[in-house]
Amino acid sequence: MQHSAFYISDGTAITAEVVGHAILSQFPLEFTHTTVPFVENLSLAEQVKEQINSCYKTTGTAPFIFYTFVDLQIMDVIQKSAGICFDVLNPFTSQVAAVTGVKPEAKLHRTHSINVNSYDFRIDAINYALANDDGVTTQNYQDADVILVGVSRSGKTPTSLYLAMQYGIKAANYPFINEDMDNLKLPPEMKQYKNKIFGLTIDANRLSAIRNERLANSRYASIRQCRMELKEVELLYRKEKLPFINSTHYSVEEISARIISDMKLERHKY
Amino acid sequence: MQHSAFYISDGTAITAEVVGHAILSQFPLEFTHTTVPFVENLSLAEQVKEQINSCYKTTGTAPFIFYTFVDLQIMDVIQKSAGICFDVLNPFTSQVAAVTGVKPEAKLHRTHSINVNSYDFRIDAINYALANDDGVTTQNYQDADVILVGVSRSGKTPTSLYLAMQYGIKAANYPFINEDMDNLKLPPEMKQYKNKIFGLTIDANRLSAIRNERLANSRYASIRQCRMELKEVELLYRKEKLPFINSTHYSVEEISARIISDMKLERHKY
Repeated sequence: MQHSAFYISDGTAITAEVVGHAILSQFPLEFTHTTVPFVENLSLAEQVKEQINSCYKTTGTAPFIFYTFVDLQIMDVIQKSAGICFDVLNPFTSQVAAVTGVKPEAKLHRTHSINVNSYDFRIDAINYALANDDGVTTQNYQDADVILVGVSRSGKTPTSLYLAMQYGIKAANYPFINEDMDNLKLPPEMKQYKNKIFGLTIDANRLSAIRNERLANSRYASIRQCRMELKEVELLYRKEKLPFINSTHYSVEEISARIISDMKLERHKY
Repeated sequence: MQHSAFYISDGTAITAEVVGHAILSQFPLEFTHTTVPFVENLSLAEQVKEQINSCYKTTGTAPFIFYTFVDLQIMDVIQKSAGICFDVLNPFTSQVAAVTGVKPEAKLHRTHSINVNSYDFRIDAINYALANDDGVTTQNYQDADVILVGVSRSGKTPTSLYLAMQYGIKAANYPFINEDMDNLKLPPEMKQYKNKIFGLTIDANRLSAIRNERLANSRYASIRQCRMELKEVELLYRKEKLPFINSTHYSVEEISARIISDMKLERHKY
């Protein structure tokens, strides 16, 4: 049986995607996924309805349809498709309206649009992460919300960018390299910002595999070198009592959520 | 009246945040937001329950609680708090189970964790975006899914990074600078990849404001210079029949969703 899922909206469809994905990932089933954003008029809605119906005909199974719509006429077209429909916000929205006595406002692009309170924070933080990536400068730590440290390819850069992009958090990052290992210590410029430092570590096998993709069969990628570097940085984290996380089995989302939680950082999201 | 919202999970709480935020942003009300990820045991759950109850006492208004839990005992503690509880996935999960005849599997960190199908795509794409940012090289366009072009500070870099981070899409980006403007054309290295090019533009006033934050009172930031550059790139987009978007009123999420939709790019998300 071929299962299918559609994520549809008159906006970006990001909310429909996140909710639908979270629901379906609980099931040990394979799905084909189709996202259709910006279904902004009835003619587009009719096209999507046809697409859903044709998917049903081809696969013999009714697709799951996750959607958010501001325009109720457009929603109505989709609801008349052959799909099994999930209006992912509606049950909760009605309840909030009942409790607060306030009506929801039908406003397009309300969720993933430019929010005056957080958007500039996010763009500033992305620029900060790029300008302070990989130890390229150590002069801007006074502006950092957090300083990530770790060996090369332990996940510092993607994590810095995720913290910036999603939460407007300014993360600098600094790599410990082979030449530091003989007498590993925190760089002097970092000392006064010690309370901002968060360490990353990773299993040696995984690190070696990642480094081999970058520089195959190098000393840099050898399991021996990876083990040595990781042992040294973990010793440093313990000696300096720095908070740290082993990133091996965690995604950037999970690492970031841990860092925000452990370091009590403020999310600039709303 | 002071309204409050909590986003709680035994995982990252990202799903609870996205859903809760999407629901509350429909209401013309102010909320204070608190996210509590990794509530992984009963003792932590009791602490969060106390936090919710104390928020109720202080504000006099029952907070809204949006949550996803794999562990039902932990969920039970939160449900006994004074908050108004929303189990954001549950109604839909039950329905999918009923339709498919398949039981959901209680698995922690299922949503925002490392997914073998998409995670390496995303990290590779982030590395690609960084290595091919701002026209630093034009040698890797054969690997690009999309090549963003536009004047300096029109949103190319954040958009490239968002496409990589969220969807594993490889986006290079290339800036048109003042020196290009006399006889603006596509760089020769780009010609054979013309079908991958997507243009960004922006209102001159907004561009001038952004550039002034970077280099105040410079020629680069002057409204005259911004107008001239934007006129030239928009002429080029039209002459070369390139798809483009004016980013002024759009977030990176919206710009990215438009690009994926217009360029028919594949999302590596699941």
